Amino acid sequence: MFELKIDNAKYWRDCVESIVNLVDEGLFNIAKEGISLKAMDPSSISMVSFAMPAKAFSKYDVEKSAGVGLNMENLSKILSRTRDGESLVIRDVDNKILLEFIGQGSRRRYKLQMIDVKKNVEKEPSVQFDANVEMVGEPLKDMIKDASLISSYISFKASKDQFAVSARGDSGELEALHEKEGSLLKKFEVEKNADATFNLEFLENMVKSCPIGSVINIGLKTNEPLKLSYGIGDAQITYFLAPYMEE
Amino acid sequence: MFELKIDNAKYWRDCVESIVNLVDEGLFNIAKEGISLKAMDPSSISMVSFAMPAKAFSKYDVEKSAGVGLNMENLSKILSRTRDGESLVIRDVDNKILLEFIGQGSRRRYKLQMIDVKKNVEKEPSVQFDANVEMVGEPLKDMIKDASLISSYISFKASKDQFAVSARGDSGELEALHEKEGSLLKKFEVEKNADATFNLEFLENMVKSCPIGSVINIGLKTNEPLKLSYGIGDAQITYFLAPYMEE
Amino acid sequence: MFELKIDNAKYWRDCVESIVNLVDEGLFNIAKEGISLKAMDPSSISMVSFAMPAKAFSKYDVEKSAGVGLNMENLSKILSRTRDGESLVIRDVDNKILLEFIGQGSRRRYKLQMIDVKKNVEKEPSVQFDANVEMVGEPLKDMIKDASLISSYISFKASKDQFAVSARGDSGELEALHEKEGSLLKKFEVEKNADATFNLEFLENMVKSCPIGSVINIGLKTNEPLKLSYGIGDAQITYFLAPYMEE
Repeated sequence: MFELKIDNAKYWRDCVESIVNLVDEGLFNIAKEGISLKAMDPSSISMVSFAMPAKAFSKYDVEKSAGVGLNMENLSKILSRTRDGESLVIRDVDNKILLEFIGQGSRRRYKLQMIDVKKNVEKEPSVQFDANVEMVGEPLKDMIKDASLISSYISFKASKDQFAVSARGDSGELEALHEKEGSLLKKFEVEKNADATFNLEFLENMVKSCPIGSVINIGLKTNEPLKLSYGIGDAQITYFLAPYMEE
Repeated sequence: MFELKIDNAKYWRDCVESIVNLVDEGLFNIAKEGISLKAMDPSSISMVSFAMPAKAFSKYDVEKSAGVGLNMENLSKILSRTRDGESLVIRDVDNKILLEFIGQGSRRRYKLQMIDVKKNVEKEPSVQFDANVEMVGEPLKDMIKDASLISSYISFKASKDQFAVSARGDSGELEALHEKEGSLLKKFEVEKNADATFNLEFLENMVKSCPIGSVINIGLKTNEPLKLSYGIGDAQITYFLAPYMEE
Repeated sequence: MFELKIDNAKYWRDCVESIVNLVDEGLFNIAKEGISLKAMDPSSISMVSFAMPAKAFSKYDVEKSAGVGLNMENLSKILSRTRDGESLVIRDVDNKILLEFIGQGSRRRYKLQMIDVKKNVEKEPSVQFDANVEMVGEPLKDMIKDASLISSYISFKASKDQFAVSARGDSGELEALHEKEGSLLKKFEVEKNADATFNLEFLENMVKSCPIGSVINIGLKTNEPLKLSYGIGDAQITYFLAPYMEE
């Protein structure tokens, strides 16, 4: 039994959006200290890890930890209908989740069936990254878009003094160089050269929910999974993406 | 023989839009007192009744009543090309309708073939409604959109003190309650509880042309057709929609 | 060997857009006095002739004339990713074209493969036009859109005192008359009545890149190709379109 309240329902919508970009179902772990969710995309190439502390809610009543499996797309559809100024109460009622949107003089209740989530995910990949890069979301989104016009893959290469992005397709090649001292990189720490190639479609979905002007954190190591994370208010979303390696 | 003039051609475009949302052809009755049209949609589940008084025109020359059958989609396509500030003259010429758009220093003439409209409609369904509800168009559009995310049908339920909207689908359930005293309901008269379910696609098309901020009138009676009507300037559009009843 | 620089990369994007609207590949002639391109669309119904003088570039280093065949769609895709405030350097490197976008603190390099352009075009059709009409782009775009709602073809008819546009389809007819003295025609010189019909889809693509508020020049002669041209900054784009003649 739990009852959670969020003063700004649109904020919760944005959080769920960051999850549904990658996975279609997931198991929320509702614990004393907050809500979390770990899930892999259907192809198991990527993973999402979401965490939102109890303090992000205006009411947080959780008697004991509970696992709530939900179809994320259905949840996201309902949240897409949030009106300005609405608050949201989330409760469990018999094997269902009740979402109650409270506006001025009207309330709207949705009941969502809980589902069994088979593929549970416990652990994040443990990688010691050789390069840690921080940059604002928009330029990273731009690079991903640039590359997607000529290829389905993008390569990131961090060396002592620059961060290089490249892509290569039938129609041409792209190479973008970002100097360490440039205005683009908020942080740039390279212990060892790191170089890996990733699927652009997944990357696009991972950066999509980054709030405007927010900083994205990138962990990179040669031919190891990429880590990409950013905050959405008090919540933290972290993605992992397996590298693409040509055979 | 008739000649009608409308100072603001875009106004006539909006009127025709409210008809074409539901029917693809119709017979305009052009009479001394004004223009009217009654038509059923191809599936005969819904009906539209449109009326525009002579005073809505800046020129209204009608020698004797005439029936003008038109393909509403072709008419609507032509009207979609109206420019700001244009006036419109409508005339009959041989078996055709001439639409003349008059702007600054240019005029544009369209000729539309009249058609035989087989299925003529004379009468509106006569229902004594148990509930009469008035609300601004936008929140009603929102409810219809909410429901369409989880179902193809929506139920309206008016009882003494509240107006309830609900929908139920495979992914979940929606229930929205609107108190009589809430700011949403401009008028709420219930003689007897009324409860019926309707097809959402038809409803969407019926509310589409409601001018921003205008009030929609709803007549409801258990398992009887819904009546939904609103004004577009001096014109009045009224829709009827048969209830959906599970077998 | 050449190196060209354009201070505003978006300007070059707009120029290339005017070419790619009609042709999918083309041979740029890079000469001392400037860049030019002549190409026919794949169906050989229309032709585009583009010219941009050396002075439109902030750097224009051309040792000797060169022909550069490019896939225009690939070029256009790359240019679509131009950011505000970027300048562009265009250079040849081995059998490739290097496009370097230079922004604040970052640079992005694209390499595009040069291609063999088989169908080279040397000459523009030589027609002595009977009517020369000038009008701002927007009303011409509107006429083309009007006509496309009822037909795939449009007729232009210039006589001593008016410019008529007409179209005829199954659903109706359109006729728009523009008086010589009207505000629409910036210039209207008719030596002899001229009347011809053209494919609307081609025309739509030809007017698409006309900058807002710019004047389009039309050359018309009965059943001869149409000439349509306008400036994009210092560059000049000219299209020719064969008339449509019913058999």
